[in-house]
Amino acid sequence: MIIRRIEVTPVAFRDPPLLNAAGVHEPWALRTIVEVVTDEGLSGLGETYGDLEHLTKVRDSAEALVGLDVHATNEMYARIASVVGDVVSDLHGLTGMATREKSVDRVFAAFEVACLDIRGRAAGVPVTDLLGGRVRDAVPYSAYLFYKWAGHPGAEPDRFGEALDPAGVVAQAALMIKEYGFASIKLKGGVFQPEQEIEAIKALHEAFPGMPLRLDPNAAWTVETSVRAGRELAGKLEYLEDPTPDIPGMARVAAQVPMPLATNMCVVTREHLPPAIAQHAVQVLLLDHHYWGGLVRSAHVASLCATFGLELSMHSNSHLGISLAAMTHLAAATPNLTHACDTHTPWQNGQDVVVPGSLRFVDGAVPVPAGPGLGVELDRDALAVMHEQYLTCGIVRRDDAGYMRRFDSAFTARRAFW
Amino acid sequence: MIIRRIEVTPVAFRDPPLLNAAGVHEPWALRTIVEVVTDEGLSGLGETYGDLEHLTKVRDSAEALVGLDVHATNEMYARIASVVGDVVSDLHGLTGMATREKSVDRVFAAFEVACLDIRGRAAGVPVTDLLGGRVRDAVPYSAYLFYKWAGHPGAEPDRFGEALDPAGVVAQAALMIKEYGFASIKLKGGVFQPEQEIEAIKALHEAFPGMPLRLDPNAAWTVETSVRAGRELAGKLEYLEDPTPDIPGMARVAAQVPMPLATNMCVVTREHLPPAIAQHAVQVLLLDHHYWGGLVRSAHVASLCATFGLELSMHSNSHLGISLAAMTHLAAATPNLTHACDTHTPWQNGQDVVVPGSLRFVDGAVPVPAGPGLGVELDRDALAVMHEQYLTCGIVRRDDAGYMRRFDSAFTARRAFW
Repeated sequence: MIIRRIEVTPVAFRDPPLLNAAGVHEPWALRTIVEVVTDEGLSGLGETYGDLEHLTKVRDSAEALVGLDVHATNEMYARIASVVGDVVSDLHGLTGMATREKSVDRVFAAFEVACLDIRGRAAGVPVTDLLGGRVRDAVPYSAYLFYKWAGHPGAEPDRFGEALDPAGVVAQAALMIKEYGFASIKLKGGVFQPEQEIEAIKALHEAFPGMPLRLDPNAAWTVETSVRAGRELAGKLEYLEDPTPDIPGMARVAAQVPMPLATNMCVVTREHLPPAIAQHAVQVLLLDHHYWGGLVRSAHVASLCATFGLELSMHSNSHLGISLAAMTHLAAATPNLTHACDTHTPWQNGQDVVVPGSLRFVDGAVPVPAGPGLGVELDRDALAVMHEQYLTCGIVRRDDAGYMRRFDSAFTARRAFW
Repeated sequence: MIIRRIEVTPVAFRDPPLLNAAGVHEPWALRTIVEVVTDEGLSGLGETYGDLEHLTKVRDSAEALVGLDVHATNEMYARIASVVGDVVSDLHGLTGMATREKSVDRVFAAFEVACLDIRGRAAGVPVTDLLGGRVRDAVPYSAYLFYKWAGHPGAEPDRFGEALDPAGVVAQAALMIKEYGFASIKLKGGVFQPEQEIEAIKALHEAFPGMPLRLDPNAAWTVETSVRAGRELAGKLEYLEDPTPDIPGMARVAAQVPMPLATNMCVVTREHLPPAIAQHAVQVLLLDHHYWGGLVRSAHVASLCATFGLELSMHSNSHLGISLAAMTHLAAATPNLTHACDTHTPWQNGQDVVVPGSLRFVDGAVPVPAGPGLGVELDRDALAVMHEQYLTCGIVRRDDAGYMRRFDSAFTARRAFW
């Protein structure tokens, strides 16, 4: 099955004003949709970041892959590494340090997923089966709460409403749980004074007794604040995610707080694993196939985590259904996935590039799509609309800080800030 | 593709009197051939150890796998773990400590290889392509030298002749290189006084200048002897393999000798990796899919080695062509295989259960078989003959020490002996 052509389509979809340590989500989120087409007429889908520098690399790489067999992922990786060269591009800073390996992994992933989609379709099996077969029939996700404004400035409030205090956060959780059935909750922090975010967790703990809770300040805290907050939240958190920057800082926190520390910031590529393990810096790795080099390489990392006793969860950026399908297939085939995965799906509010129906939430979990490959089909009309939105929305790279500065000129992204 | 039945056939083939730290090879080597047959009529091959306790587990496991899809390797692993239970069986002691995980991995591997063979046949691609595609067209192997008697006691000398001193070892190497074109050499040690084996390496170094050399005493040496020998062989060894037992012992040696240490004894299952890495005990892992749980799990371990900067080579026991094909497919798809692999193929002296022709050595390397799956076909006549040999040879488990004691009643297997 030889790759004959690859379509690369940037898309934009509406995104609510979600607050984080880097600023606030702009009105449009960007993604890039990859469609790999073989000489036998089979095609496969991948989804990745939409930022312009990344999009350019994806486009350049797509040309370099034409003529390869869909199985030749080692050769694909080598060609993409050659295209990416030594240029390291940082995206939005919320998924940790940029490295050259991560830059290559990030471009490679979309093509690898698309090729697995094709291989699954050809074999008549779900992608899960190409990864060892399912160990669970449905993949649990968490309610991913954000502090947010009622709506984008100058626009109508969105249906999620405002969440700027503990009560707003609890109301948001209640809505998400009602609509999706989530059985665990993550709060994106790093927005307000730590004490206020600690209060929000306490309010969630009281409102949803027994439900696993997570807090992710995105490295906005110092080591000292992280330790104080961690101790104050003893018994209330499933894990504390990236409270402070860098492996040594996380190691100092980990040694002094009662709960596990999770990361998708200080361990984001293979070279970070040895020092993080040696320093006992993290106990839970948030896997993300979009930057760990696709599904098979993520499976390698999952196996490494099992070997070293690291627990596993899954990280998410704003995404569409192709990514949700890929995440679900990977998670379904990963025996040591020990926590519910993160997803931004509720914030996408029904917008998608895939035909509705194959992805659904049942009790907070997504049943593995039954069809071959990823089990999702491209909605070409929706793709065209979203591409048009990309062309007209005026955004070519995510800039949460720049958008925030339009309303708060003194704003700077927070890193070990409080 | 549902597994309809699995044929499990123990075989025996003639083996020369190869000496090692555990004794001497008996006149017959045992293997078990596994043939998995699907409801669609496709079948796949696996090869594993022939020792009776292991054979029994393979047979019991085969029954438990009927009805599963060939992709469902996670479920296969779980069922085999259930069959194997808590019983840990040690085989011959030359591949390190037995553990429960290793016992399961060892049984699982043969089925996993057979299922990959089927998947490759169904997709029309070599197994290499199911592992990421080839990064090399041919896999280099080393000349695997043994001290040996001229022939088994009471029998005619075999065509390899006697090798009991440096001159005999050099002559054996010359024969193997002439016939196979090997470009690196491994000497199995742990047989004679260390000084004599050091002399053999020096003689090889002189006879084959520039050729990478390895020495494997199979943990027959103390730490002190290992350090002394390592220093004496500075500049002459590509690596020193398992000079002394256990991770702490290897770590002490590694800190004091100039060459890398390799192992297939102190790191033989995942639980050994964290302490070995933490203690810097080994620099080269000798991968072996037969006990690392098949090809995909071996690929996971290879990825882990890349992450932690461990080099890779490949271990071998006496084997037939199904195993050589599987090793070659795995090695061809492993980017970080940094050393030529070991193989016992020359000692099998043309005996095989696969139809001749698809496996050949060119300049010491085996070109990846071109056909789908493993690219080898079962020779049913040869299988029947070898199975008959199994039934009549009188050996049901490998016992190098027991066989040696027939000729040297005081012999005991050597472990940190010299």
